This record gives sequence, structure tokens and C-alpha cells, in this order.
Amino acid sequence: MTRDEAAALDRADPLAAFRDRFDLPPGIVYLDGNSLGALPRRTAARIAEVVAEEWGRGLIGSWNTGWLDLPMRIGVLIAGLVGARPHEVIAADSTSVNLFKLLVAALRLRPGRHTILAAAGDFPTDLHIAAGAAETCGATLRTVPADAIAAGEAVGDDTAVVLLTHVDFRSGRVHDMTAITRGAQARGAVMLWDLSHSAGALPCDLGACGADMAVGCGYKYLNGGPGAPAWLYVAERHQAALSQPITGWMGADQPFSMSGDYVPAPGLRRCLAGTPAVIGLAALEVGCALVAEADMTAVRAKSIALGDLFLNETERRLGGFAVACPRDGAGRGSQVALCHPHAYPIVRALIDRGVVGDFRAPDVLRFGLAPLYLRYVDVWDAVDRLAAIMDEGAWDRPDHHQRRAVT
Amino acid sequence: MTRDEAAALDRADPLAAFRDRFDLPPGIVYLDGNSLGALPRRTAARIAEVVAEEWGRGLIGSWNTGWLDLPMRIGVLIAGLVGARPHEVIAADSTSVNLFKLLVAALRLRPGRHTILAAAGDFPTDLHIAAGAAETCGATLRTVPADAIAAGEAVGDDTAVVLLTHVDFRSGRVHDMTAITRGAQARGAVMLWDLSHSAGALPCDLGACGADMAVGCGYKYLNGGPGAPAWLYVAERHQAALSQPITGWMGADQPFSMSGDYVPAPGLRRCLAGTPAVIGLAALEVGCALVAEADMTAVRAKSIALGDLFLNETERRLGGFAVACPRDGAGRGSQVALCHPHAYPIVRALIDRGVVGDFRAPDVLRFGLAPLYLRYVDVWDAVDRLAAIMDEGAWDRPDHHQRRAVT
Repeated sequence: MTRDEAAALDRADPLAAFRDRFDLPPGIVYLDGNSLGALPRRTAARIAEVVAEEWGRGLIGSWNTGWLDLPMRIGVLIAGLVGARPHEVIAADSTSVNLFKLLVAALRLRPGRHTILAAAGDFPTDLHIAAGAAETCGATLRTVPADAIAAGEAVGDDTAVVLLTHVDFRSGRVHDMTAITRGAQARGAVMLWDLSHSAGALPCDLGACGADMAVGCGYKYLNGGPGAPAWLYVAERHQAALSQPITGWMGADQPFSMSGDYVPAPGLRRCLAGTPAVIGLAALEVGCALVAEADMTAVRAKSIALGDLFLNETERRLGGFAVACPRDGAGRGSQVALCHPHAYPIVRALIDRGVVGDFRAPDVLRFGLAPLYLRYVDVWDAVDRLAAIMDEGAWDRPDHHQRRAVT
Repeated sequence: MTRDEAAALDRADPLAAFRDRFDLPPGIVYLDGNSLGALPRRTAARIAEVVAEEWGRGLIGSWNTGWLDLPMRIGVLIAGLVGARPHEVIAADSTSVNLFKLLVAALRLRPGRHTILAAAGDFPTDLHIAAGAAETCGATLRTVPADAIAAGEAVGDDTAVVLLTHVDFRSGRVHDMTAITRGAQARGAVMLWDLSHSAGALPCDLGACGADMAVGCGYKYLNGGPGAPAWLYVAERHQAALSQPITGWMGADQPFSMSGDYVPAPGLRRCLAGTPAVIGLAALEVGCALVAEADMTAVRAKSIALGDLFLNETERRLGGFAVACPRDGAGRGSQVALCHPHAYPIVRALIDRGVVGDFRAPDVLRFGLAPLYLRYVDVWDAVDRLAAIMDEGAWDRPDHHQRRAVT
């Protein structure tokens, strides 16, 4: 493909208008929206309003005029993106804290079972939190290859809950939510999905696949900002009996009665703990509302096309890189991954030339493809700059080898 | 006292200049800084910078240029306010979530003991979370009158941890941190203080009193904004062995290695769970930095004087109100409380006249006195308007009786 051909795809892109809704740094090809989504243009003004007007002028009274509803209001927006009903999602805390709540709740739903089953190599916080929840509850975390979960064979009589990320953070592999959910449930386990790398990037349907629980991140494809509040989903059928461990006042039926024992709120609000993080939630609401305007089918089609373009051009122009993600777009999330023995300095050299991807140990270059603000020419340019770096040997400079905390 | 005499006190106030550092609504006497602190003037610009520059321009790279350090950097500021060493405090999550972490950690420090001891009538989320942590760990929550904790007699052989709020949220009563800490520890228990109503309002010295653990709120006297991140303290001597249950990736020794089992960070960073809430933390940092400029001894002296003025004028001018807080300033936090059978409509009538206090069931009018932005004339005016409302019977209007979620 030529750059002109890529530009022609952009002119025909039904999602093209979304790019202007984001405030992107000039000259940068940002392929890290799966780590931190870009800034929606509306966010700055909304946050300024929350700070100056709602906090500065409204002060404590603003709890009555919108703040208390934020977790549920954002939940409605996210529910529409993940195939949930409006009362099945709320925004709160971090993905890690929400995972802890729901893993413990799932263990309580299956009192005779004592194993959390998860995939080896899944996102670190999922496995870490699962280990912590297991230790806290006297249960065991068992990790097996994701394929063993996908095949259903690893789910045993003692498995209380199966935890799996829908799109693998490293390879971009997409798991079959329906088959895996049915397999887990057929063996009596609760199915808990992590949709951190899915929500807002590809259609998912928690209702249709019959999932029990899910969590997800607010700062990736939902564009909620750095460390944005996360979200959680509990199917309506489990809500009335749901018992989660972090029983803070905002999850109580009457938080402001200021007295009495903890009685959980009747619905999903019982999954709240502390006071909602208003400023962060307000930013998340802007990001979710923007994504909710997009047609997820079009988003998915463009995501696959961007990935195919990236991989096709890489294979055509570059030697020495191995494709480390599914080659078939239908089995791949909204990201691509390459392996190269010098992955780290190459990623750093790309950043120096304005192409921001990231490195995942030990040897993976990972590129997120956020269809709402990426153009086909951006992907073409990214591969072009990567080819130039390799041709020139420009990656092999001492500063490109120096490790940073986040790359 | 006359209003002119109050104004003279303001002219002599060594903290007077702080008021201009806050963006206060004109004409309002804000006596609810103990529920939600006022907006520092610098916050809006700092948040705008974080959003537009650090997120919008720096994107993922900003994790390397300040974001990762935010929890510890704010911890240093708060440590200075509560008598801790810089590495003994971090900012993270909500007070509720931090309480859960530390209560479970405390139970693990005392494996042969299975009781959490707390004060009946303490702040709801403290008791709710204590009940939830106890249930999760197979322990028991025992509540006794605060006096029984203060006298030390309630701490038994099975008490793993004693949880108490330093300043009672309703009455403003101040507990003796040194005596209670020593009493708990002498009987083998861990002492966990909630300083939500103390930090930034009165001197407290976690180090001098030998406390084991503490938590506190970011949105009251620290002026961090609605739902600001909270903080937690663990004495250095406990940090190396500390095991907290919400083992998220940001508490791991190498969060970005993206592989391997959870190994906790060597210091207090192990108490982090998910990705830090950058925007909320940035607002909290501004609030804490502002409070850290003030001399806490002067803050305390003014706080007591404001409370004495409020109570003196109330007793002089108003009948029918009972003082529901310690009359002696040394035993009272930075708030006053009155009882009246019509407390609710009176609080609502006061809000209508620009005096914002709050109602606490069943019959308490509570007024927070934030010395950094309140003047003596504000307190004088508040009592003056309260007297007018009572003289005119203006509280007894139908709309003043209508309940709102937060008052």
C-alpha cells in the first residue's frame, strides 16, 4: 500500500470525524491508547466546570445535584458498550480493587468451592489480586495456560470462579466469551471477565454470553484519563445475594443515616465502597459519552483494518520481526504485537521519532490501535518510521537502551 | 462580643492571609469544611495543566515525569501534618478501601487474635468496613462505648486491633492518642487511628504517640476536592512484614516487569493497589501543599477560638439549643455541634441564608471551623443569622423539612 492509498482509506472512513474530538499532540502517532487513551477535547472544559463551579461554588451541596449519581450514570454509558443492562454496571475505584471485590463475592457465591482459576501470563494485576483474594479467603489460585481455560478442561469441581481477560494484554488474542462462559458455568463456576482491553474497542456482549461478572479499566479505550476510575458488572440475577467484602458507607442502603449496621443497597450500588472520586469520574464520563456515540461495528471493522495494514506493511517492508499477535483480524483485539530481540531500544527509537508504542518484556513491541483517533496514514507512517530506524540502525544508541519505569 | 470585636480578631489573625488562597463563593459562610474542604485558588490551574499538558501532550510518557511518584510525594506532605516520617504515609484509594487494607493487615500481624475493637457510634464507614473486614477474615467486630476504649478496659486478649477516630465526627470530641495507643499496645493490640477529622485541623503526632497505623480523608481539612484520594500511615517498624490483601500491581516491587508472582514493594508502596488516580491526586497535592504552609499550632489556637466564639455567642443569644460538643476547646476538634429538636429544618433555613453547616441524625447541627479560610466575623455572622431565623420562626417552612440526600 502507498501512503496515498492509506489517505484514501481515511477519506472514506465513517469514523473520521471522531479524530477532531480529541486533543492530540501535533506530529505524534500515538499507538498507546491501550495503555492510556487520548484526551477528549471536551474533558478540559468539563473538569474546569466541576472544579470551579460544582466544587468551588456548589461546595457540599453539589452532592445533591449530580455527584451522587455519577457512578451509576457512567455505568449506564459503559453498559451500552459491553452488552449489559443499565443497572448492571457502575464506575468505581480501580480495576484492581473491583477485581478484589468481585473475586471475593464470587467465592461467596460458591461456598463449597475454593479455587480461583486464571490464565498464566494474564495481566499482572489480575493474577496478583487473584492471589491476594485467594489468600484472604482461604482459597487457592490455580493458573493454567489460557488454552486450557478456553477448552474448558481446566475447570474442576473445586473451581469457584474463572477469571480471564477477554483480549490478552500482550498478544492481543481474543477469547471466545460465549464458549468459555458456558464451559465455566457448565462445571458450576462463576465466570468473571476482565474487559480492560475490550470495552470501547470491540463489541462485547456480556448479556448474550451469559457472563456472571466483569471488570474493566477506564483509562484505556474509554479515554477517562490517567488512573481513571474503573468499572464493574454483575449480572442482575446475582445482585440481590451479592456479598462483597469492602463494605464502605457508599454501598450501604442509607449512607447518610449515619447510624446502624451495614445494610447493602438493594442493587449494584452495594459494590461502591468509599466516597466517589468526583473529578476523575467527571473526566471518565466525558470519555465514555464520546465512545458511546460511535458505532461499535464500525469501530471493530476499522480496528481490524488498521491492524491488517500494520502487519501487511511490516511483513512487506521489514525483516527480523516476528508477528506476535493473531494474524487473523477476527481473533485479534485492537492492537498488534511484534517480537524482536532488540524490542526495547527499537521502541525507544520510535518514541524519539514520534511514534508512541510500548514495550512488553521480554521482547515485544506492542502497538495499540484506537480507531476513534487513529488514521490509516498514521499506521502507514508508523511502519515507515520503523523501517527507517531499522535501515539506519538508529535504534542502537546508548540512550535507547536506558530503562525507564514506563515504556 | 460585638461584630466589631470579631473583626478586630481577624485583623490580628496570623493566619488571615490564607483566606485569599481559597476561592470561596461570595456571601457564603461555609461551615462544612469538615465534610468537603473549600477550593484552593491554585487547584484549577494545576488541574488544567495536568489535563492539557501532562495528559494531552505528555500522554503515557507522563508516568515517567511525575505521575508515578504522586502517592509518595503527597504522603511526604501529609506526614508533616500528622507527625509521621516521610516514608510512613502514602495517598491512595478511599478511606474505606485503606481501612480495609489496614484492618486485614493488622489481623495478620496478630494471628492468634480474632477481634476488631471499635467504638459504637464511630463514623459509619469505619464500622461498616470493620464489619466487612472481620467477616472476610473470620474475625469478629466488637463495638463498645468510646469511653471503654479510652479507659483501656475493653481491650482484651483476643483484640487484634483497636480502631478509633481521633475526633468524633458528630460531637467533635478529641481522644487522647497517646494514652489510648499505649493502652491498646500494652494489651497486645495494634492501634489504628482514623485521622479524617484531624489532619490539617489540629496537631497530631503519630510518631510521638507510637501509633501503629492510621488512615485519613483527603477531602476535608486537606482540601483535596470531592472524593479526593485518601491516605494511610504504617509505622516503619511494621512495614517490612506488612501483608495487605489488595495486592494490586502498583504495590508490587516491579510493577512493569509484567510477569511473575506478586512480590510486595519493600516499603509502604506495597499498600498501593491499582493505578494511581492522577487527576484527583494532583488536586489533593495542591490542597496538602497549602495546608503544609500553615503553622499547625496557630491553626489549632484559631480553631479553638472560633469554636469558643461560636459557643459563647450561641449561649448568650439563643435559647433552646444544647451544646453537643466538648465545651472545653482542648477536648474539641475543629467543629462545634448543637442539639435542637428541629435541627433539620434549622440547618436548611441556615443554608438558605448562606450559612452552610450540616445535619447529623437525629438532632445535631454540626458546624466545621476550617481556620485557614474562616474569619471570626464569619462565625459571628453565622450565630447572628441563626438567631434571626429562630426569632422569626423562619425555619418552620415546608421546604426546610424536605429531606435531601446530603445536608
